[in-house]
Amino acid sequence: MTEHTHNFPAEEDYGLNVSLVDAVREVVEQGSQQQLLSLLDPLHEADIADILEQISPSEREALLTLWGREIDGEVLSELEEGVRDEVMRDLPDDLLAEAVRDLETDDVVYLVEDLDEPQQEKLLEKLDDADRIAVERALTYDEDSAGRLMQREVVVAPEHWTVGDIIDYMRGADHLPESFYDVIVVDPLMHPVGEVRLATIMGTAREVPIADLMEKDFRTIPVDQDIEDVAYAFNQYHMVSAPVVDPEGRLVGVITIDDAMEVLEDEVEEDMNRLAGVGDEDLTDKVWRIVRARFPWLSVTLFSSILSATVISQFTDAIGQIVALAVLMPIVASMGGNAGTQTLTVAVRALATRDLTSSNAMRIVMREVMVGLMNGVVFAIVIGVAGGGWFQDPMLGVVLAMAMVVNMLVAGLAGILVPITLDKLGADPALASGAFVTTVTDIIGFFSFLGLAAWMLL
Amino acid sequence: MTEHTHNFPAEEDYGLNVSLVDAVREVVEQGSQQQLLSLLDPLHEADIADILEQISPSEREALLTLWGREIDGEVLSELEEGVRDEVMRDLPDDLLAEAVRDLETDDVVYLVEDLDEPQQEKLLEKLDDADRIAVERALTYDEDSAGRLMQREVVVAPEHWTVGDIIDYMRGADHLPESFYDVIVVDPLMHPVGEVRLATIMGTAREVPIADLMEKDFRTIPVDQDIEDVAYAFNQYHMVSAPVVDPEGRLVGVITIDDAMEVLEDEVEEDMNRLAGVGDEDLTDKVWRIVRARFPWLSVTLFSSILSATVISQFTDAIGQIVALAVLMPIVASMGGNAGTQTLTVAVRALATRDLTSSNAMRIVMREVMVGLMNGVVFAIVIGVAGGGWFQDPMLGVVLAMAMVVNMLVAGLAGILVPITLDKLGADPALASGAFVTTVTDIIGFFSFLGLAAWMLL
Repeated sequence: MTEHTHNFPAEEDYGLNVSLVDAVREVVEQGSQQQLLSLLDPLHEADIADILEQISPSEREALLTLWGREIDGEVLSELEEGVRDEVMRDLPDDLLAEAVRDLETDDVVYLVEDLDEPQQEKLLEKLDDADRIAVERALTYDEDSAGRLMQREVVVAPEHWTVGDIIDYMRGADHLPESFYDVIVVDPLMHPVGEVRLATIMGTAREVPIADLMEKDFRTIPVDQDIEDVAYAFNQYHMVSAPVVDPEGRLVGVITIDDAMEVLEDEVEEDMNRLAGVGDEDLTDKVWRIVRARFPWLSVTLFSSILSATVISQFTDAIGQIVALAVLMPIVASMGGNAGTQTLTVAVRALATRDLTSSNAMRIVMREVMVGLMNGVVFAIVIGVAGGGWFQDPMLGVVLAMAMVVNMLVAGLAGILVPITLDKLGADPALASGAFVTTVTDIIGFFSFLGLAAWMLL
Repeated sequence: MTEHTHNFPAEEDYGLNVSLVDAVREVVEQGSQQQLLSLLDPLHEADIADILEQISPSEREALLTLWGREIDGEVLSELEEGVRDEVMRDLPDDLLAEAVRDLETDDVVYLVEDLDEPQQEKLLEKLDDADRIAVERALTYDEDSAGRLMQREVVVAPEHWTVGDIIDYMRGADHLPESFYDVIVVDPLMHPVGEVRLATIMGTAREVPIADLMEKDFRTIPVDQDIEDVAYAFNQYHMVSAPVVDPEGRLVGVITIDDAMEVLEDEVEEDMNRLAGVGDEDLTDKVWRIVRARFPWLSVTLFSSILSATVISQFTDAIGQIVALAVLMPIVASMGGNAGTQTLTVAVRALATRDLTSSNAMRIVMREVMVGLMNGVVFAIVIGVAGGGWFQDPMLGVVLAMAMVVNMLVAGLAGILVPITLDKLGADPALASGAFVTTVTDIIGFFSFLGLAAWMLL
C-alpha cells in the first residue's frame, strides 16, 4: 500500500530532486523516449514544470521534442511566464488546443490572458462552446479583479432544499467543480443568502432543511474587487471559500482559499522585490530582460548618488583641509540608510497587512523617532569615540557623533513618513519608498557631517 | 436577507474601519459598556484583535476593563504576541481558562506555547483531561514542526467502509473537526492508505465502497517535518489537506491549507525582514524592544562602514591632491550596493521557492555576471561622461567608468554567490547576505575607484 504514498521532498530528499533533474538531462541527451516517460510519468505537474524551468533552453527544446510535445495543460499552467511563452510558441496549434481543453476554465483564463490577440483567438476557437464563452466572459474582467480569480462553476442550492435534496443533486450531477468546500444557498434571483460547509451537510440527516444549517453571516466578494483585497479578507477572516457577486448582488462565481493563497504570496513577494528595486522578473528570464528590469532602479540610484555628490562638492574646501572627513563621511550615510530601510520595511509590511492605519499612525511615527534617537545616541557615542581616537581629534569625534544622531533621527522619520505619505496618495509604498528614503539619509548624512565639520572644525 | 451579508472592508470601506476604531475609543472614554458591546458584537474576532492592537496601551486597559474582561479565546489567538501577553497577564486565571476552554486544541497550543512554565501549567490545569493531554502531547513536538501545526482531530474511515458507512458515522458523531475537507482512509494499524474528498463522497451513491473512490496517490507529512517544508509542499502541489504520520507511518493528525497559508506568509515576510536587517518585531512592540531588535544589524553596518573607511584612509594622499575623488567615490559604492541587493533579493526568493538549485546555479551565476557587466557598461558610460565633464578631467571620467564596471560585476557575483554559499552551509541566506554583499560592494567600490585614481591620475 505504502508504495502509493510519497513524502514530499524534504531538505534531504530535495537532493534527490536535483539528481532527478540530472537523470532527465542524461536521458534527453541519449534520446531515450521510453526512459524519459518513465521518469516523468510519476511526477506531479508542478515538478515537471520545475524541471523544464531548471534545464537550459536547448535542453528544454530537446526534451519537448523527445516527449512528443504531448505536454499536459496542467504543466503549462505551472510554468513561469517566460518559459511558458517559449513552450507554447513552439507547440503546434492542435496539440496546444488539446492540452488546454482538459483544464478548468479558470486555468484556461490564466493561460490565455498573456497571449497576444491572434494566438488567443486561435486557441479559444478550439474550445467547446460553453468553455469558450466562460473564458471570454472571464477575460472581460480586469486582470487584478476577483472576476479573473474566481471559478465560475459553483454548487448552489435553493433555500427550500433539504440535505437529502443536495445529496441527490450532487449524486446526479455529471460534473462537479474540482475544488469546493461549501454549498452556496441562493434565492430565486441568485442572490447568495447562506453558506453550508460540506462537512456540515454530511453530518446531518437527510430530512433537515438546509435553511436550518446554513451560515447566514458570511462575506461576499464584489466581482470587481481588487485581488489584493480578496487575499486580505481570506487571510484576516480565515475564509475557505467565498461567493463572488455582480453589482446586483447575484452570484457569479466562487473564490477558494488556494487561489487566495497564491495571491497573498505574490503580494508579499512583490513588496519584497519592490523594496529592493527588482521589477517583474522570473529566474528563467534571459539576460537582456533582466537588464531592462533592473535598469530603472539603478537609474534612480545614479540620480540619487549624483545628488549626494553635489552635496559633498559644496564642502571640497573642508575636505581639502581635513582629509579625514572623506574617510569618515560614508559611515554616517550608511548607518542612516540602513536604519531608514529597517523602518521602511516594517512600515510597508504593516501598511500591506493594514495594521498601520490613521488610527495608530501618529503613535508609530513617534515610536520610530524615539527608536531612531535612541539607536542614534548609542552609535554616536561608539563612533564618536572611535573616530575621535582614530584621528586623534576629539572635536572630529563630536562632529561625527552629532551628525550620527541627526541622521538616525531623520532615518526613522523618513522611513515611516515616506511610505505613509505614498500610501495616502494612492501609490504603492513599496515601489518608490526605498529610493526616497536612502536619498534623504544620504543627503542629510553627508550634509550634517560635512556642514557641522565646516562650521565647528575650520 | 442581505443585511446578514457583509462585504469585507475594501479600500473605500476601510476608512469605515478607522472610524470604527475612533468610535470604540470614544465609547471607551465615555465608559459606556452597552455601546461598547453593541460596537464589538457584530465584529469578527480578527477585527476586534486589530482594534485592540491599534489603540494605545492605556486605552486597551480601559477597554478591557469596560468589556468586563470577558475576552473570547479566538480574539486572544488573533492578537500579536506582545499585546496578547499584556492582555493575558492582566486576565484573572479563571477568565483566562474560560476563554481558552472553547478553543480547538491547536489554537490552545498556539496560545500557551509562548507562556512561561508556571502560567502554562496553571492554564493547562483548567482544561478538560482530554484537551489537556492533547495540548501537552502537541507541546512535545518541536516548535517549527508539523506536529505543532497539525490538528489532532481527524475523520478517518477503515478501508472496507462504503460511502453510506461514512455518512452514517458522520451523522452519529457528536463532534466533528471545525475544518476538514478529506476523509482519510486507514488500515487497521492506522496507516493512511487513501484520501477521499468530501465532495466526492457526497456525489456518490451510498453503496459504493470508499476503496473505489479514494485517491491512493497522496502525500503524507512526517510529524517532525519542518513547517517551512510543509508550506512548500502545500504551495507546490496545491494541497488542501494532508495526513501527518509518526515515524512508524501511523496517522497522528492532519494539516489543512489555512495553516499552511499562514506559514507561507510568515516565511516570505521573515525573508523580507531579514533582508532589511529587521528582526522579530511587531508593530505594537514598545520602543526599547524595537531598539534592541534593530541593534544587531546596525552594529554590522557600523563594522562594515568602518572597514570601508579603512579602505578610504589608504588613499588620503590621492584625495588630498584631487578632492573630486571624495565627491565621486560614493557613486560607485551606491550603485554597486543597490545592484548587489537586487540580485540578492531575487536569489534569496528563488532559494526559498526552490527554483534555484544546484541544477541551474551555474547558469544563473553566469547570467548575473552578464547582467552586472551590461548594466555596468551602460552606467559606466553615463557616469564617466558626466563625471569627466563635471570636473573637466577626461581621465577622471575614465577612472570612474572603469571602477563602475568592476563594482557592478562584483555586485552581480556577490549578490548571487553569497546567498548560494550560505544556503549550502545550511544558514538562512536571507539573514546575513545583505551585510556581506554591501560590505563587498562598498569595499570594492571605494578600492577600485580610489586605487585606479591613485594609479592612473597621480
